[in-house]
Amino acid sequence: MAKSPETEHPQRAFGWAARDPSGVLSPFNFSRRENGDEDVTIKIHFCGICHSDLHSIKNEWGIARYPIVPGHEIVGIVTKSGTNVSKFKEGDRVGVGVMVGSCRSCDYCNQQLENYCPKMTFTYGSIDRDGTPTYGGYSDIIVVDQHFVVRFPDSMPFDAGAPLLCAGVTVYSPMKYYGMADEPAGKHLGVVGLGGLGHVAVKIGKAFGLKVTVISHSPGKEGEAVGRLGADGFLVSSDPLQIKAASGSMDYIIDTVSAVHALTPLLALLKTNGKLITLGLPDKPLELPIAPLVLGRKLVGGSDIGGMKETQEMLDFCAKHNITADVEVIPMDQVNVAMARLAKSDVRYRFVIDVANYLSK
Amino acid sequence: MAKSPETEHPQRAFGWAARDPSGVLSPFNFSRRENGDEDVTIKIHFCGICHSDLHSIKNEWGIARYPIVPGHEIVGIVTKSGTNVSKFKEGDRVGVGVMVGSCRSCDYCNQQLENYCPKMTFTYGSIDRDGTPTYGGYSDIIVVDQHFVVRFPDSMPFDAGAPLLCAGVTVYSPMKYYGMADEPAGKHLGVVGLGGLGHVAVKIGKAFGLKVTVISHSPGKEGEAVGRLGADGFLVSSDPLQIKAASGSMDYIIDTVSAVHALTPLLALLKTNGKLITLGLPDKPLELPIAPLVLGRKLVGGSDIGGMKETQEMLDFCAKHNITADVEVIPMDQVNVAMARLAKSDVRYRFVIDVANYLSK
Repeated sequence: MAKSPETEHPQRAFGWAARDPSGVLSPFNFSRRENGDEDVTIKIHFCGICHSDLHSIKNEWGIARYPIVPGHEIVGIVTKSGTNVSKFKEGDRVGVGVMVGSCRSCDYCNQQLENYCPKMTFTYGSIDRDGTPTYGGYSDIIVVDQHFVVRFPDSMPFDAGAPLLCAGVTVYSPMKYYGMADEPAGKHLGVVGLGGLGHVAVKIGKAFGLKVTVISHSPGKEGEAVGRLGADGFLVSSDPLQIKAASGSMDYIIDTVSAVHALTPLLALLKTNGKLITLGLPDKPLELPIAPLVLGRKLVGGSDIGGMKETQEMLDFCAKHNITADVEVIPMDQVNVAMARLAKSDVRYRFVIDVANYLSK
Repeated sequence: MAKSPETEHPQRAFGWAARDPSGVLSPFNFSRRENGDEDVTIKIHFCGICHSDLHSIKNEWGIARYPIVPGHEIVGIVTKSGTNVSKFKEGDRVGVGVMVGSCRSCDYCNQQLENYCPKMTFTYGSIDRDGTPTYGGYSDIIVVDQHFVVRFPDSMPFDAGAPLLCAGVTVYSPMKYYGMADEPAGKHLGVVGLGGLGHVAVKIGKAFGLKVTVISHSPGKEGEAVGRLGADGFLVSSDPLQIKAASGSMDYIIDTVSAVHALTPLLALLKTNGKLITLGLPDKPLELPIAPLVLGRKLVGGSDIGGMKETQEMLDFCAKHNITADVEVIPMDQVNVAMARLAKSDVRYRFVIDVANYLSK
């Protein structure tokens, strides 16, 4: 008979878990594996709430294995390091993102694209190599192979920096891959949706020297987008006149919207050779007009988080450019309220759980 | 009052034209402009029949201006060259493709991407800078600015080489742009549709060192694809078992199909980081599943012919690798029969009109 979560490993752990598709989170005693030769044990200080945490606890992707301890924007301090661990020592500030394992030998792993490894292990909701479930960062401690741990820059605050581990690399990686980082200053980036991903995309885009225009269905966000986040312009996506006036003006668009939506107006905003990068996961196919792709050599591409090397590079880049997320810090016992607000997009722009002050022994 | 086509210019010309959306072509007397300082006059020897000629004469894109003299895969001999013409002299073998003019000063023209110039002038069906209609290559002579004329390699036969001026560059340009020419040998290209574009894509793909698999709805084409054209493999697109077995095996797909069709199985054939390049123009949007783009960092992109520099480069590349189209040469007076057969895809793989032997004075 399989052991209970509380007894399957030697290290006691405590967190909050969802037990069923209601998604309600409640206190949960479980356990973590002993710290191995390649592992570090981390005392978790803060953990961001990603929109995928909400999808997962409610089983909206249909692959949930309960109980689920969510959380993959984890920052904390190393409390133990294995004998083969060279990158970290006790007391180091570190971060853990969306994955905690991969095969380490496939083509993708060899290219430092562990995020595309077919055997990638998610930080929570996966089955680890030892056959036990992985549990995420809404918890007091975590044990992770050093390869999947990043140095957290000294100058970066734990709370506002935590969301970069998912939201940050999710926008940084496609900016690099699709060429935005190599452009001369002044190329024009549109960012569709001003949420957790979008507001970080604005900041990183500006740091890359791009002109950034936010495209949102909420006219009320214009002041924040331009005034506080530093965007150069703002378009209301539901206003065809505004969209038409900006037609053919953008070199790139990062589309963070997960709802089913129209691509035709976004493709029209692009110049010839423009690139539309989709990061959301709509649950139905979108309509793709082919003529703009052919006649304007435009493309629609996607991207999914980033590899470990790139995650470190992104953190260092953000530290250098003083980029963090805009966060609302909450205590652990407010997480269900936060989830309900997140479901209504009522957060500017990321909830972060103050874990250590509520869960640590 | 506007002058008639026969009298608006000083040089007499003779060709075959469509007069209405029936698309029936018949003999047509018209005229060409006097050879200007930058122009060459070309005696046309052969002209390929592109599928877009058929769309145009039947007004299937809704933009036809009759009479239409189609033809934009033109090869012939220079009979006159203007005082400023440095690239060509009388007696030179030359080619003219899809365009005969552009603004020469926009960002795209400055990057030698005249094919994306917003003021690009098509070889037929456009209004030229002097306000008169352009007429294409189903005719005895043509007058073209030297910038839009390419040298036709000495070793390349006129008839089988003519289709390269549209079909050739249409597949060559995206292969270069999307990186296929820079890959180590053995990367895997799928070619969807074995028609005018597809059969040239197979040949050019092989010359770039790619492994090439043809994806066709016609099982009967396997022998030709593998045996004669040199493809390495063949998949029947309507056989889900074959498609499933090849899942995740391709680095690139060139999709030449113009009918509405499913992208999901094609995206499934691609590896992570794979690229699906669409070259056809379906008259309705296609369904685009987003998950493969995000989770596999795949992209869907398009491309439209190529610039003049790249057209010359493609011809020289094809000459070096002994690549021509597989053609069926027809006399001018068989053009309506050829169009009817083309509408049924009854040609392997391109009709080429022997113009000079039927129209020349």
